[in-house]
Amino acid sequence: MKLVVNQKNLKKAVGLVEKVVSKNTSLPILGNILLKTENGRLRLSATNLELGINTLIGVKIEEVGEIAIPARIFSDFINTVQDEKVTVVTKNNTLTISAEHYKTSILGFDSKDFPIIPKIKSEPVVSMPASMLKNALVKVLDSMAVSETRPELAGVFMQIKDKQGILVSTDIFRLSEVTIPVAASESVSIILPRNTVMELVRVCTDISGDVQIKYADNQVAFIVEDIELVSRVVDGTYPPYKNVIPDKFISRALIKRSELENNIRLAGLFTSSISDIKITCAEDKLTITARNSDKGEIETDVPAVIKNEPFELSLNYRYILDGLKNMPGNDVILEFTGAGSPLVMRPSDDKSFVYLIMPLRS
Amino acid sequence: MKLVVNQKNLKKAVGLVEKVVSKNTSLPILGNILLKTENGRLRLSATNLELGINTLIGVKIEEVGEIAIPARIFSDFINTVQDEKVTVVTKNNTLTISAEHYKTSILGFDSKDFPIIPKIKSEPVVSMPASMLKNALVKVLDSMAVSETRPELAGVFMQIKDKQGILVSTDIFRLSEVTIPVAASESVSIILPRNTVMELVRVCTDISGDVQIKYADNQVAFIVEDIELVSRVVDGTYPPYKNVIPDKFISRALIKRSELENNIRLAGLFTSSISDIKITCAEDKLTITARNSDKGEIETDVPAVIKNEPFELSLNYRYILDGLKNMPGNDVILEFTGAGSPLVMRPSDDKSFVYLIMPLRS
Repeated sequence: MKLVVNQKNLKKAVGLVEKVVSKNTSLPILGNILLKTENGRLRLSATNLELGINTLIGVKIEEVGEIAIPARIFSDFINTVQDEKVTVVTKNNTLTISAEHYKTSILGFDSKDFPIIPKIKSEPVVSMPASMLKNALVKVLDSMAVSETRPELAGVFMQIKDKQGILVSTDIFRLSEVTIPVAASESVSIILPRNTVMELVRVCTDISGDVQIKYADNQVAFIVEDIELVSRVVDGTYPPYKNVIPDKFISRALIKRSELENNIRLAGLFTSSISDIKITCAEDKLTITARNSDKGEIETDVPAVIKNEPFELSLNYRYILDGLKNMPGNDVILEFTGAGSPLVMRPSDDKSFVYLIMPLRS
Repeated sequence: MKLVVNQKNLKKAVGLVEKVVSKNTSLPILGNILLKTENGRLRLSATNLELGINTLIGVKIEEVGEIAIPARIFSDFINTVQDEKVTVVTKNNTLTISAEHYKTSILGFDSKDFPIIPKIKSEPVVSMPASMLKNALVKVLDSMAVSETRPELAGVFMQIKDKQGILVSTDIFRLSEVTIPVAASESVSIILPRNTVMELVRVCTDISGDVQIKYADNQVAFIVEDIELVSRVVDGTYPPYKNVIPDKFISRALIKRSELENNIRLAGLFTSSISDIKITCAEDKLTITARNSDKGEIETDVPAVIKNEPFELSLNYRYILDGLKNMPGNDVILEFTGAGSPLVMRPSDDKSFVYLIMPLRS
């Protein structure tokens, strides 16, 4: 392989793929980035076996070839180089990078040892603006389960059917559901692994074009501009989450989001491992109290428009903050659906997002 | 105590003093900030017994008083509050903070248990622009010793004499010396502890006025605007460092600082625990090489104007970067003073700063 490449383009591509590089030390080849000339361009690939990423950049190729190169030193080097154009040559599994005043040799590996990232040849199931997918995924990030005890919850359930896409996540303490309009050519119901969701958000950030989704043989691909993410989907069935979302409420409160958020934060300072915040909703205000026997206590009021009866409940304040963070608009709605039933949060003027907090057992 | 205070002013003052608050859990009172009304203003103080800080802010006092309040919860609270004015009241070692929509009680301690921060009553030894002191201290930060094995090296030696102030630090691997013009009323030679130097830099940042220095009984005070830092000085004698600074050189190289820095960074990527960078200086260039048996190798050239003979030496690249970072101007001078003798670095057009790197024993 011999080529000349613009340092900025190479830096951007390396920055993109290196996040997927595995720290798995039992398989050192996964710590590499595969460089391969392909149809007049340079492909950079990384994989951790669950998730793979490919990206293509324009280069001036003098000789085709391929090599696997340790991601860390390659990335550090390309990020430090200041020359606009660098010449890259491979010989005997060594990558030589040179510009006017320097010459570097980085020890690489045989590209044949690099795992194959699956190719999905089928037609796209759906195509949608990358920004729309990203905004929807961001809303369901927090309620993905962190633990792998129930792998089907450690990710996002994605259901595409006719003109509707639904993204859901739940860690059994809270649940987020976002609905987006799509035009799908076929139906798909898959669970995206946690790490894939995080990467997808990163890749779709600041992209103005569309993302195409392909699916076959338990592998899903997201293709956006010159980037392709290929991920295994989670084995298993997503729980029948729809049963958990209450279809009616007992009381409802309409509140300014920023005021609620600020006061929940203040009250959160006085919670402890044994005592959380208490919300009392009556007349024209929502009262938040918290007490910590070592630190002190707080009582704070937020004006609210209440419909139906007063209500009172204890909640993990962090769950409320997570939900509020993703609410668009100035006002939020809290729906009290009964003792032992979830608290429902929604934006006041947007039916596409709903966030549930399961009640604390006391 | 009862007073009304502007949240922004209180937040700024808390942010300033809380950095000095000790995490020493065997003396819980040190985790507090002392609040005390003083001549119509509110004084906030913190101390870790070695270093104390006082600051005064304007408040509307309705009733004088004092209390020690845990820094962490107080700071978290004041940083989260959004109201412009808050009312602060103490009663039975509890601090009550209230504004329109909330009321908080934070549990505090008796102010009598808070250690006394020494008062230095003598006249200032010297006064100088805070920015000048800060800029000089920043240049000697990196070469302070980190370990406390030799406490006199874990800080900055400050010598004020007639019209000259000298700041020196060395960890025996490198040495920094800065000279500043001052007008001192008396001579002082003290060693400032590491932590005091760091705080002093922080306090003097973005201050346009002067800092006054007072000294008595092994305590030094720095007074700037409404802030007073009071620190113990290090017991012990500073080593006769002047003997280490070579008074002549064998060869000298004049180099563009940014080019040298960038190439040292590149070469640094290929160093290892057993092998550092090698610098060879000959004809019209400085050649930097490094080799790591796992990663690869590099050779890079930097144009240089060389005086006298060629020279070659091995160095810790991080020490060069630390020195370069503090060199003003576009060009730097490297002086080779012989095998086993330090490498001297200076700005090309500023005699007030000199940086020495001791040679590696090979």
